[in-house]
Amino acid sequence: MNPVLEASIAARKRESSHGDKNMVRFGVIGYGYWGPNVVRNLDQLDGSEVVAICDKSPAARKRIQKAYPRVRIAAECTELISSPDIDAIAVVTPVWTHYELAKAALENGKHVFIEKPITSNTAQAEELINLAEQKNLKIMVDHTFLFTGAVRKISQLLDEGALGKLYYYDSTRVNLGLFQHDVNVIWDLAPHDLSIIDHLIEETPEAVVATGQTHLNGHEDIAFLTVYFPNKIIAHINVNWLSPVKVRTTLIGGEKKMLVWNDMEPDEKIKIYDKGVDITSRQGLYNLLVNYRSGDMWSPQLEQVEALKQELTYFVDCISNNQNPTNDGAAGLRVVKMLEAATESLKKRGALVYL
Amino acid sequence: MNPVLEASIAARKRESSHGDKNMVRFGVIGYGYWGPNVVRNLDQLDGSEVVAICDKSPAARKRIQKAYPRVRIAAECTELISSPDIDAIAVVTPVWTHYELAKAALENGKHVFIEKPITSNTAQAEELINLAEQKNLKIMVDHTFLFTGAVRKISQLLDEGALGKLYYYDSTRVNLGLFQHDVNVIWDLAPHDLSIIDHLIEETPEAVVATGQTHLNGHEDIAFLTVYFPNKIIAHINVNWLSPVKVRTTLIGGEKKMLVWNDMEPDEKIKIYDKGVDITSRQGLYNLLVNYRSGDMWSPQLEQVEALKQELTYFVDCISNNQNPTNDGAAGLRVVKMLEAATESLKKRGALVYL
Amino acid sequence: MNPVLEASIAARKRESSHGDKNMVRFGVIGYGYWGPNVVRNLDQLDGSEVVAICDKSPAARKRIQKAYPRVRIAAECTELISSPDIDAIAVVTPVWTHYELAKAALENGKHVFIEKPITSNTAQAEELINLAEQKNLKIMVDHTFLFTGAVRKISQLLDEGALGKLYYYDSTRVNLGLFQHDVNVIWDLAPHDLSIIDHLIEETPEAVVATGQTHLNGHEDIAFLTVYFPNKIIAHINVNWLSPVKVRTTLIGGEKKMLVWNDMEPDEKIKIYDKGVDITSRQGLYNLLVNYRSGDMWSPQLEQVEALKQELTYFVDCISNNQNPTNDGAAGLRVVKMLEAATESLKKRGALVYL
Amino acid sequence: MNPVLEASIAARKRESSHGDKNMVRFGVIGYGYWGPNVVRNLDQLDGSEVVAICDKSPAARKRIQKAYPRVRIAAECTELISSPDIDAIAVVTPVWTHYELAKAALENGKHVFIEKPITSNTAQAEELINLAEQKNLKIMVDHTFLFTGAVRKISQLLDEGALGKLYYYDSTRVNLGLFQHDVNVIWDLAPHDLSIIDHLIEETPEAVVATGQTHLNGHEDIAFLTVYFPNKIIAHINVNWLSPVKVRTTLIGGEKKMLVWNDMEPDEKIKIYDKGVDITSRQGLYNLLVNYRSGDMWSPQLEQVEALKQELTYFVDCISNNQNPTNDGAAGLRVVKMLEAATESLKKRGALVYL
Repeated sequence: MNPVLEASIAARKRESSHGDKNMVRFGVIGYGYWGPNVVRNLDQLDGSEVVAICDKSPAARKRIQKAYPRVRIAAECTELISSPDIDAIAVVTPVWTHYELAKAALENGKHVFIEKPITSNTAQAEELINLAEQKNLKIMVDHTFLFTGAVRKISQLLDEGALGKLYYYDSTRVNLGLFQHDVNVIWDLAPHDLSIIDHLIEETPEAVVATGQTHLNGHEDIAFLTVYFPNKIIAHINVNWLSPVKVRTTLIGGEKKMLVWNDMEPDEKIKIYDKGVDITSRQGLYNLLVNYRSGDMWSPQLEQVEALKQELTYFVDCISNNQNPTNDGAAGLRVVKMLEAATESLKKRGALVYL
Repeated sequence: MNPVLEASIAARKRESSHGDKNMVRFGVIGYGYWGPNVVRNLDQLDGSEVVAICDKSPAARKRIQKAYPRVRIAAECTELISSPDIDAIAVVTPVWTHYELAKAALENGKHVFIEKPITSNTAQAEELINLAEQKNLKIMVDHTFLFTGAVRKISQLLDEGALGKLYYYDSTRVNLGLFQHDVNVIWDLAPHDLSIIDHLIEETPEAVVATGQTHLNGHEDIAFLTVYFPNKIIAHINVNWLSPVKVRTTLIGGEKKMLVWNDMEPDEKIKIYDKGVDITSRQGLYNLLVNYRSGDMWSPQLEQVEALKQELTYFVDCISNNQNPTNDGAAGLRVVKMLEAATESLKKRGALVYL
Repeated sequence: MNPVLEASIAARKRESSHGDKNMVRFGVIGYGYWGPNVVRNLDQLDGSEVVAICDKSPAARKRIQKAYPRVRIAAECTELISSPDIDAIAVVTPVWTHYELAKAALENGKHVFIEKPITSNTAQAEELINLAEQKNLKIMVDHTFLFTGAVRKISQLLDEGALGKLYYYDSTRVNLGLFQHDVNVIWDLAPHDLSIIDHLIEETPEAVVATGQTHLNGHEDIAFLTVYFPNKIIAHINVNWLSPVKVRTTLIGGEKKMLVWNDMEPDEKIKIYDKGVDITSRQGLYNLLVNYRSGDMWSPQLEQVEALKQELTYFVDCISNNQNPTNDGAAGLRVVKMLEAATESLKKRGALVYL
Repeated sequence: MNPVLEASIAARKRESSHGDKNMVRFGVIGYGYWGPNVVRNLDQLDGSEVVAICDKSPAARKRIQKAYPRVRIAAECTELISSPDIDAIAVVTPVWTHYELAKAALENGKHVFIEKPITSNTAQAEELINLAEQKNLKIMVDHTFLFTGAVRKISQLLDEGALGKLYYYDSTRVNLGLFQHDVNVIWDLAPHDLSIIDHLIEETPEAVVATGQTHLNGHEDIAFLTVYFPNKIIAHINVNWLSPVKVRTTLIGGEKKMLVWNDMEPDEKIKIYDKGVDITSRQGLYNLLVNYRSGDMWSPQLEQVEALKQELTYFVDCISNNQNPTNDGAAGLRVVKMLEAATESLKKRGALVYL
């Protein structure tokens, strides 16, 4: 894990709060499913303040009014984006709107916190990154899972070498719905895993293969991604909107140990198995000695802090200290590159697409 | 499910036993991991008898001697294959030996029960099928899972239309080891699922995509298969020899209902969910009405009879009544075709290979 | 289940809302762990309104102020209890305060919604019941579980005779903490099960046996209750504050079917097993024919509405329509009788105490 | 755990096998449900040999004949018990026959391996113990669970003090059937737990309370036992023949750590939780500081050897080395004392019965 990130979290634990002079003032665009969580956290942090919120939906604006009577509320985002009393914009809207909104925010000198995936294509992401760099502004893509106790623990275990050489990452992320109208199941669910593997696996991915099928609304509702990495590391992601049960299970295999991450478990989300296979001799095809090791299982206690709170705290710190976040625009771009490659492969029903 | 198969099972339940004149006399080649199960069942069936068993390993022959003192035991299979008092040969050996052994047995006028996959390639399978046809002999490939209570119940549900139009079949079949020396994980574990989808899905598969990776002994130890069928049916198979936990879970999605088959559950292996998604309107991209149905779950009692016993009873019946089994040489060939296509796709790291 | 209760719930679904003239105005005493849920629901119901809230804790009052700026807030409850613009008092405080608060409320002509258990002893409960009767006021004891989808479904199944003659109710309700300072684990956790069996089992309980042990703070932290009913029905309740895992599992056995209610399951909380035992003959001790039936399992979809919302809606209806609730003072008294008997039995380390 | 037992198991692992002069020759009485397992293990051990088996049932004798053609088979046990070439008798019959058979065997100078519970009452057990002592013969009661990897690991953890001061042992052992004709569910299922707590808990139990109910054949089919120990240790056992699901779960709470033993899990049978409660201050009733500790969970790898094999190996060692087994007649007596007390308490519907 990025040492800056861990240092930021540790620092936050030590000190209590900033003075008001460091307060980062936010405007939030979008108050649908996820927006209220972003607003609630920004509102409660010591270092940030929500100044204004906009949403096109009158019902959403009514809910904002009830929950945050003292905040400015708008139907259009123009005012927010240009307002001089706003330091940063949180873009919590559908992906096809990200580029326009983030670009406008950056052009107006605002830092940007933006939902995943960062944009609908790589060209847009690159443009935003360049713009931010020119203006010395921060972009953070909301790769929330990086800030969960589970992913932070896995990251730590990999950094320590506890699993040994990494063999594979295999995730199943399926449930019934929620069908999206504008994107397929890969763009909806796979960004979680793609951002996690971008974070955990130190190699640069080489190529993507995607298969899948559309049954209902013209977008693929079931899909399977393989990402090839150097050094024989392979990642696989199974996403499905048509599963009767909700599954959030990831297997991670290493030379020394193996890990199961079941995010549906209320406790014991991560189990580490002291299991493995050693091939000790190679004297001829039929003389391999295959040894299976099987030892204890261990489930570490995970930190219970809300991931989004950790992430937004970190964003506020990055702004205050002029540091680049781990999940910056470039991380967002790497995820979009894999999504684009997956889309291309999917169209060809499984061709290998190099990154 | 094949009506002949179900009729055979039903008939077996009604009547008790054949006279000795119908007794099918078996020679069994191979007494390693699976052979003892084949022998035990053939020995206990009313309609069959084990006359001779051969195995190259002295230790295996010692075990045979202890368990079946009255049976002829041999190190070489030549005698079995040509013996006039043997009607049928069970080939329970590694896949690369199947073709030679089965060919010799057929040439000597013996029916053949053969482990999955039937052969190492399609040409061999075709030759065996032709040979059997010329000599009016039966080949049964040991697609044991077709005879489990679970697959028979799923087959019945699909036949009755209980799930509605089929959307997908998605299987995860992973565990630690058992590494094979001569084949990769696809040839080892995927034949189970390929024989099941061959049985359950009425369409002819169009193409296969396979990805995977080798980490230890030069054969892929983790792999992912997609099989494309007509009518938007898609199958996916996740096989892995490097998983810390044993998983045997299959999701089957249909228009009306969805099903989870967890073969690791001692009871309640199959759960049928009255869940689904209906898209009721298409007036513009953003006006789709997506309705999620969520009703009761139901877990049917499954028949508890040992699958291999059902299968061998059925084979004896097919021989006695001169009927072609469902899991005949042609079924074996269809599975090998998919395995060959998967191997080709795997080499190209995920290319679409038409069947 | 009480037909009045079901009718009330059904009626609520049909009609939309009362006019304001029927609005029941509430004062809520206690804003600790559970109080905020009571306030939130009363605030959102069509037929009720929260006029005032009191809590001795300044921190609690600050939270009230933030969440409900327009509500009267007080440190002492005197004003609430005598206020002429308040129709009903919700007592959401520790059990040892219930009697005084409820008595004062009733004496001032207020209906009373009161946490479980209703009082610390039966004499207090009887006095409250008499007082309410004299003044024609309603008491509802917060036996929330009666209003969950799970208990309502079980109640329906028992009423329909789906389980056949009832054999037993066996509940395990254990977790780590939350240690109470004023009561033992029986008074803390068992009221849930006691109110459920009071509701589900039509017989009047005969006697109670309780065993247990105290390890830490002078109150029993682990205890086991048996309640004997006529007709060989037996109930057992296992409560424990020192369990490393949280368990909420109840087995209910009947002559025809058996049921498992696992309240920790997010879905499939209730599973009904078509299983049973028939003893068909009694010709001598060793000639009993024991038949085990084993059929399908079925998990019905449960209603998802928040139980407390159902309960408070029902309370408002009972007040508006001058009807006595199922979970009235008498129900509360029956639960306290069992708690008292359990306490007496516990002191004697397991003596049978008649009710 | 008894150091002799552990030393025996360790020694067995080191050395390979005895000479024939040390061979213990067994006669086995009873070849019903459990007998075949006893015979199979005795037959395979290096230090023992099965000379003769008797069973009243012709069908059982036929099965013996098929499996062990070279062993003497009898309908009556008289010959076995007096045969000069037999050193030890294994009594694998219903409990009401134990006393007569074991007594005759001891009188004839044979060591005795006997099913649990040792006898139907304490007087019989005491007589057998005295008889064995006079004749310097060994009695081992088949408390198989003591030899499972799970109980041996728990025993080791308690010995090491890993759990800290013991608080409670709480076992649930329920399933559908198997109804016994001669004993109630306590005598059928509780001996497992009673022998385990006799082994694990170093204190002498003080008193027993039992409640339960009979529904079908005149014997209690559901029952609940509490065993009071000194030092505030409490044990509870829930046994039930009328449960739709099979449960084998034991919670063990200690001051430092807590443990869940789920014997239905194929792997991870034991989970140790670094959880606990500390009460750090006692300044007044409402000023207790309750601290909940919550740390990692750990599931140790358990030894996989068959428990009955371990136990019979140990018995053969005890005979050969003239050592008294841990699970000797006295251990059997202690279990029967608790069963008798439970029976008495059950008749009185829950009275405290001192041991």
